[in-house]
Amino acid sequence: MSAYDRLEQHCKRIAHLEGALGILYWDKETMMPPGAAPARAEVEAELSLMQHELQTSTELADLLAEAQAGADELDDWQRANLREIRHRYLHANAVPGDLVQALVRARSESLMCWRDARPENDFASFAPKLQRVLELRREEAAVKSEALGVSRYESLMDEYDPGRREAQVDSIFDELVTFLPPTIDAIRETQASQPSPLPPPGPFPLAAQEKLSRKVMEILDFPFERGRLDTTAHPFSGGAPGDIRITTRYSEADFTHNLMAVIHETGHALYEDGLPERWRGQPVGENRGMTLHESQSLLLEMQAARSGEFLRYLIPVVREALGGEGEGWDTENLLRVYRKVEPGLIRVEADEVTYPLHVVLRYRLEKAMLAGELDAAELPTAWNEGMAQLLGITPDSDRDGVLQDIHWADGTFGYFPTYSLGAMAAAQLFGAACEAQEEILPALGSGNFQPLYRWLGEHVRSLACFYTPDELIERATGSPLSTEAYKAAVTRRYLLTAK
Amino acid sequence: MSAYDRLEQHCKRIAHLEGALGILYWDKETMMPPGAAPARAEVEAELSLMQHELQTSTELADLLAEAQAGADELDDWQRANLREIRHRYLHANAVPGDLVQALVRARSESLMCWRDARPENDFASFAPKLQRVLELRREEAAVKSEALGVSRYESLMDEYDPGRREAQVDSIFDELVTFLPPTIDAIRETQASQPSPLPPPGPFPLAAQEKLSRKVMEILDFPFERGRLDTTAHPFSGGAPGDIRITTRYSEADFTHNLMAVIHETGHALYEDGLPERWRGQPVGENRGMTLHESQSLLLEMQAARSGEFLRYLIPVVREALGGEGEGWDTENLLRVYRKVEPGLIRVEADEVTYPLHVVLRYRLEKAMLAGELDAAELPTAWNEGMAQLLGITPDSDRDGVLQDIHWADGTFGYFPTYSLGAMAAAQLFGAACEAQEEILPALGSGNFQPLYRWLGEHVRSLACFYTPDELIERATGSPLSTEAYKAAVTRRYLLTAK
Repeated sequence: MSAYDRLEQHCKRIAHLEGALGILYWDKETMMPPGAAPARAEVEAELSLMQHELQTSTELADLLAEAQAGADELDDWQRANLREIRHRYLHANAVPGDLVQALVRARSESLMCWRDARPENDFASFAPKLQRVLELRREEAAVKSEALGVSRYESLMDEYDPGRREAQVDSIFDELVTFLPPTIDAIRETQASQPSPLPPPGPFPLAAQEKLSRKVMEILDFPFERGRLDTTAHPFSGGAPGDIRITTRYSEADFTHNLMAVIHETGHALYEDGLPERWRGQPVGENRGMTLHESQSLLLEMQAARSGEFLRYLIPVVREALGGEGEGWDTENLLRVYRKVEPGLIRVEADEVTYPLHVVLRYRLEKAMLAGELDAAELPTAWNEGMAQLLGITPDSDRDGVLQDIHWADGTFGYFPTYSLGAMAAAQLFGAACEAQEEILPALGSGNFQPLYRWLGEHVRSLACFYTPDELIERATGSPLSTEAYKAAVTRRYLLTAK
Repeated sequence: MSAYDRLEQHCKRIAHLEGALGILYWDKETMMPPGAAPARAEVEAELSLMQHELQTSTELADLLAEAQAGADELDDWQRANLREIRHRYLHANAVPGDLVQALVRARSESLMCWRDARPENDFASFAPKLQRVLELRREEAAVKSEALGVSRYESLMDEYDPGRREAQVDSIFDELVTFLPPTIDAIRETQASQPSPLPPPGPFPLAAQEKLSRKVMEILDFPFERGRLDTTAHPFSGGAPGDIRITTRYSEADFTHNLMAVIHETGHALYEDGLPERWRGQPVGENRGMTLHESQSLLLEMQAARSGEFLRYLIPVVREALGGEGEGWDTENLLRVYRKVEPGLIRVEADEVTYPLHVVLRYRLEKAMLAGELDAAELPTAWNEGMAQLLGITPDSDRDGVLQDIHWADGTFGYFPTYSLGAMAAAQLFGAACEAQEEILPALGSGNFQPLYRWLGEHVRSLACFYTPDELIERATGSPLSTEAYKAAVTRRYLLTAK
């Protein structure tokens, strides 16, 4: 067996551990009895350690070197696979073992502390734990940036969105900061002159909402024969290759958020489901990072599902499923409900127009933190100033401010940009798809996603990690990732048709 | 770190893989979408292979030798752990790798074939697959018997019930063959003179049955904070240490079988739950083999739950839960339903008096098969002759005869005896418990299992693998495993009180 073939076997083993961990995670969030948590933590830690050992083994290093030497004999996909294996190897091996362990401990303590501090609105007790995580991540970024030959912040972003550069994010986010505030004002002015959106009157029984969720997933061609929908406190998309499992949560008072959350998670799941089976278990066969992943969920949620075509198809389905009657159920009113733009304090509740400003705030703050220009204790002030500047509002409490997200508590720095880069990519990919295939939009009007999926299958899903994220976007759309399509879509949806 | 301590770490790793596999198995049977089966099979195979590698690694052999050399410094539990580790090591290493692989393949093909052959009543198409499995197991038994220094059949039994000897099983089963047929005749004569048991009239809605199952599990003190009940085609008890999960199935027409199945699986689960936490992850901390395991489920199902004391407490609970009224719900009638003795064709439907004869038949046949005296093709004839001789009835079809069990199709030879040895042990342990603690039986009359569990905790559950199975039974009951307690219990329950 050639070195390359043995390398594939080695990767497959890592991937199978990942698959087991994926199901164990899903089980923990949905099924596990709470008292089993300590025992489960040990099992997960052991499997993760085994994975780490495989990722840092000298056997892998040797195979990689040997395979690299024989790369001329490989085909394009195999060479791309080598590149991805090498990329992972660099990440896994850049950081010394004692730093890895210190981070695991610090993250876990910080997370535990955050879970108490948030409801208590007690940033002061959380700050030292966050500071510890921050300092360790700074150390990690220092060694990683050297190993990868990129800036420190980039070395962290690179874990989630390989190859992403600060200059590019700066330029995209600066454009958004220029474009969005006046656009938001204009949209709000327009919306103020229209009838107020009337939320349909609840309560909406959970069983009916669950049935509706499944119905909508069927419309979206979610393959239930190899996937599931369940209920959790925090919706996610998980499972394992060939076994895609999404979750959602329901509120009796409001079905609209759940419905879009289900479509969002379905977008994530369909991306995973569409990755090429031939390359399953190999790094080149995996999803192309979080900007691309988010582009696939947002493309369904924000572009396809919020299109007038699809909403006009969907609303009668919803009305029938929930037995809705009367004013709030009018299609045009529901369009207005789904398109209401209003600056708010909470990122996860934001509409698609104000959302990027939440992300810009976090991006700027975490870059400053990583650079050593901002410490944990100074965050609340910086947060509130940033909110006032970008969104024109200030939280009354840290609970609705700097304490709202889990990311920093978990040591996740460099991830936030992918949400909005994903939104840009979603608009750009959807625009290119609709331009290339005229039938896509009319098909959505009859609940038919197949034309859209055919395009996505060819240009995104089936390519997995064959190209870099930016190469993939440029090849699919004809231009590099930019704000143009997003700006055009926002203008069209909120300012032109809204007249 | 001492060699012994490193050995414990090594074992813990194997146990954590086992824990992951336990949850994956549970998920596969209860939650997994069917289309995920191929991907899941790969994950399971990988984790099992990792386990096998750890069990056969030279590192383990070296650590074992080193720890053995320093055994004087260890305490009793650690020495018992060494003994158990060594025992597993022998089993894992006795069989050459190519034979292991051939068996995996042959078992899987045979199982697949059996699943089709059984409903089709087509033994002929199944016979060659079974023959192949049989021949490989014969080979395996040949090498294992040499490694373990026991007979060939014993070397297979030893996987499920360590230390079990043919001579002992022969003697116990011969006694049963002498005792049971005339006893069954006498019981049937007695029962013929009583009112016929009237099955309570259904249907019983599944939701009500499920609620009742949980209620009964609560009475049995099943710890739902670290356990679950779900529904599957074939009930089992599984999960992982600290996370006990049982399943059952419901029939609208009949609640009685489900109710006892739930109690049976709860017995298995409570045994696992009561194993000493200090030794979790070590071989000495695991369950003491299948005879002991079955003794714990049957002790609850056949001894405690079928006692007059508990049934008289349980029946009103059932009646209320299922809204039962009228003749079939009379307590004395339901006692008769639960105690009806009648030879039948199907082992899993047999009452506790005829059941052992089903096991004797299988034991005799599989010993002959292993000895090379009986081939697969000859089985149906031998089966039907054995049924006629032992139970006085003959199946009309192989579906209700030799094709009914999964065990041989799966290559499981040497397991069947544990069902009836477990029944003997259940009666013996329950008898000893009630003799030692007079409060046990009256407590069952008010649904209180704590006195029984205190005794079981001290004499069975907390001892895990500290003693051999037979040592444990003898220490707990004062006598070696025998048929005495079982015979006495059957006589008392069916012939003395039944007058």
